[in-house]
Amino acid sequence: MGDRIIGAFTEQEEIDRTDIKSAVILLSGGMDSTTLLYKARDEGIHCHAIGFDYGQKHLKEVAAAQEIAGRLDVGYKLINLTSLHDSFLMHAASSQTNPDIDVPHGHYADDNMKVTVVPNRNMIMLSIAAAYAITIGADAVGYAAHAGDHAVYPDCRPVFIWGMSIALEHCHFSPGITLYTPFRDIGKHDIAVKGQELQVPWELTWSCYEGSDVHCGSCGTCVERKEAFHLSGIPDKTPYELIL
Amino acid sequence: MGDRIIGAFTEQEEIDRTDIKSAVILLSGGMDSTTLLYKARDEGIHCHAIGFDYGQKHLKEVAAAQEIAGRLDVGYKLINLTSLHDSFLMHAASSQTNPDIDVPHGHYADDNMKVTVVPNRNMIMLSIAAAYAITIGADAVGYAAHAGDHAVYPDCRPVFIWGMSIALEHCHFSPGITLYTPFRDIGKHDIAVKGQELQVPWELTWSCYEGSDVHCGSCGTCVERKEAFHLSGIPDKTPYELIL
Repeated sequence: MGDRIIGAFTEQEEIDRTDIKSAVILLSGGMDSTTLLYKARDEGIHCHAIGFDYGQKHLKEVAAAQEIAGRLDVGYKLINLTSLHDSFLMHAASSQTNPDIDVPHGHYADDNMKVTVVPNRNMIMLSIAAAYAITIGADAVGYAAHAGDHAVYPDCRPVFIWGMSIALEHCHFSPGITLYTPFRDIGKHDIAVKGQELQVPWELTWSCYEGSDVHCGSCGTCVERKEAFHLSGIPDKTPYELIL
Repeated sequence: MGDRIIGAFTEQEEIDRTDIKSAVILLSGGMDSTTLLYKARDEGIHCHAIGFDYGQKHLKEVAAAQEIAGRLDVGYKLINLTSLHDSFLMHAASSQTNPDIDVPHGHYADDNMKVTVVPNRNMIMLSIAAAYAITIGADAVGYAAHAGDHAVYPDCRPVFIWGMSIALEHCHFSPGITLYTPFRDIGKHDIAVKGQELQVPWELTWSCYEGSDVHCGSCGTCVERKEAFHLSGIPDKTPYELIL
């Protein structure tokens, strides 16, 4: 049992399966997931987008995702998980779902950014995306976890992706669901370069955790967004509330 | 990375961690999950029960679970996932969520029982249970997957449990969430023996997929229930609609 799967994981060409025909992509409306959607389409994968309302403060991302999916004529499925928010996420130690915890500002890799983690969010979203994939006959789910996430987000790390790959591959009748995570070993600025090549409409993407009218410019994701554009040499045309 | 985890999995004493202090138990209200709850409590684990309304035909199980949790004075959290049903599960190829597909009758290991599978149901439930566990400070989630499930349910097989164990252990900051599945290698009749020892109130448990007033006696789970009592020599006092 183990050997085959472990072998599959350590062989890069195995995990980066090129035989994916259709995929459900977690589309948050940020730079990373939008680039993932553009990349998957560029590879000839038939894409479906999925998003979630879990009572996050930055619900504005959903409107961004819908507009991006519409631009590509990709179906967008919005899943209402507000019951999870009301049931317990509003009491979680997360700035994104607990109204009593402020969104932290500063560098995205700082220790205080850990409060932005929503408990097991990615597994919940991937599990529902996989159920949706099975229902509509898609053979993969994809999310845009990248190397820059590793400092703060446990559910973006390679070991988490590895476990999820095994579980998803075996969660249903053979051949199961493939986990598509082509960005897991690269940084956000590399994603920006890739997105620029693919003509991602950056102006439609939304990163800010505050979810106000414009990007705040100083929360972790805004700082990360700025840095990604800067490091990749791509002009950052985002209107920021606070120009740092 | 891999060695440690694979080692942990193959070493039985590692996966059956005895240092679980508190756990969120998936409690469907059937024989298996009820016995799991009784077993966990018997081992001194502080238990929280969780259940799900995903629009299943056998929603009656929720009332059974609530009564069982109440009997033990264990908190029961009901998660409303009817939005998933309305969004896509009602169109899935599952007799339990699609109103156009009849619940099959016959032996639980028959091939036609595969239509009772709800796409990726266990991963969805475990992922939400883990989020709840993180929120309340519990260190494990448990579900009653057993060897008899393997014939039909992909998301009860050891390889699925293995992948989920890895993902859950790493889904959050260390030490993550432990997956508690003590029944994965034993049959339902063994669970019945265990439950009898623990004085599980069988009369409160609900197995039937039809969800009518009394157990139908001929759907897969009713047949399995009967067989478990029969094989373990425990009197089956369940009122069945159809005595086969």
